Amino acid sequence: MSDGERLNHPILEQSFAIIDQEIGNHSLNSWEYAIARRVIHTTADFEFAELLRFSTDAIESAIACLRRKVPIITDVGMVKQGITTMVAKTFNNFLIAAVEQVSVADAGKTRTETGILRCFEQYPQGIYVIGNAPTALLALCDRISESNLKPGLIIGAPVGFVSVVESKQALARLSVPQIRVEGRKGGSSVAAAILNALLVLAWENF
Amino acid sequence: MSDGERLNHPILEQSFAIIDQEIGNHSLNSWEYAIARRVIHTTADFEFAELLRFSTDAIESAIACLRRKVPIITDVGMVKQGITTMVAKTFNNFLIAAVEQVSVADAGKTRTETGILRCFEQYPQGIYVIGNAPTALLALCDRISESNLKPGLIIGAPVGFVSVVESKQALARLSVPQIRVEGRKGGSSVAAAILNALLVLAWENF
Repeated sequence: MSDGERLNHPILEQSFAIIDQEIGNHSLNSWEYAIARRVIHTTADFEFAELLRFSTDAIESAIACLRRKVPIITDVGMVKQGITTMVAKTFNNFLIAAVEQVSVADAGKTRTETGILRCFEQYPQGIYVIGNAPTALLALCDRISESNLKPGLIIGAPVGFVSVVESKQALARLSVPQIRVEGRKGGSSVAAAILNALLVLAWENF
Repeated sequence: MSDGERLNHPILEQSFAIIDQEIGNHSLNSWEYAIARRVIHTTADFEFAELLRFSTDAIESAIACLRRKVPIITDVGMVKQGITTMVAKTFNNFLIAAVEQVSVADAGKTRTETGILRCFEQYPQGIYVIGNAPTALLALCDRISESNLKPGLIIGAPVGFVSVVESKQALARLSVPQIRVEGRKGGSSVAAAILNALLVLAWENF
């Protein structure tokens, strides 16, 4: 940590202590648990401890990328909003929301999907944080499997009932550093919490 | 609806149809269910059908206020971000995030709490949407019970482990139009979903 400022508010630390008491048995290592705990704090839903999946290289790759100031691309504005403060307090990575990059969707695509593909052209090795749009995650996975390019990390946490599980299965098939939320759950707050936890890990071990 | 544009994307309608199939028995009326369904869509968590509480006047007061372009005050930027698009598509209410109104917290208070109290001085009859900060909800409830002023609606959906349940209990004791999420659950996405559902109800019955 380059200065004395604490990244986590005292109330957040109190909240973490309660989660520590209540979590019970789990199979997460300490870095994985730091991420799960922040997600649980953000949702009050302990089920996330069982839903998170980490590729073996995910957290190390994420930390290295964050420190190298690799650009961060979110699918929607709400995820971007949820990480802006912590990015500004730490490594100041360039940060954009894919949906805000395009005013009109390409034919047959959603606006988020169109945006994420344009971002991948510009930042193929970026950190991708998907908290909302399964169409964006599916399109990103398709494009990656057609190319030799690999993002530094993909956080796959779209939420909902249509194409969400399929999009996460597509991500799981790729050999790319990734953190996923299995099943239907996820969301902007969850995706932002995962990235914020990674920023704290990267900063506190700087 | 003043023009032919659909407020809900076709994928959202598909998602709603799946929720309709899976929800099972509940005791919500049709407007309450419209709100619960949007929250379930946003979280993939059916528990919210049982956690939502509506004061008898809440939805009618909300609809009337939204149509009258009453200002909307959120606690944090992420809630504001989550409702910006739907507000712009409908009644264009003035929209601010309390935390963004102050750069330094008053002594002994959080920044969000300081911000919400300043907003209440300016907009005592506003629509308050709290998705994150229990300190802000507690401070707002205290100030309301000391005054004769009543907001048009309070959405009480802070999330977490510290002061969250207490803040919702304080809201429940007030005779103010309100929609609450009981217990620890809630969050920015949940608060935004409740307000967005209200905007759709107000617009489609315009």
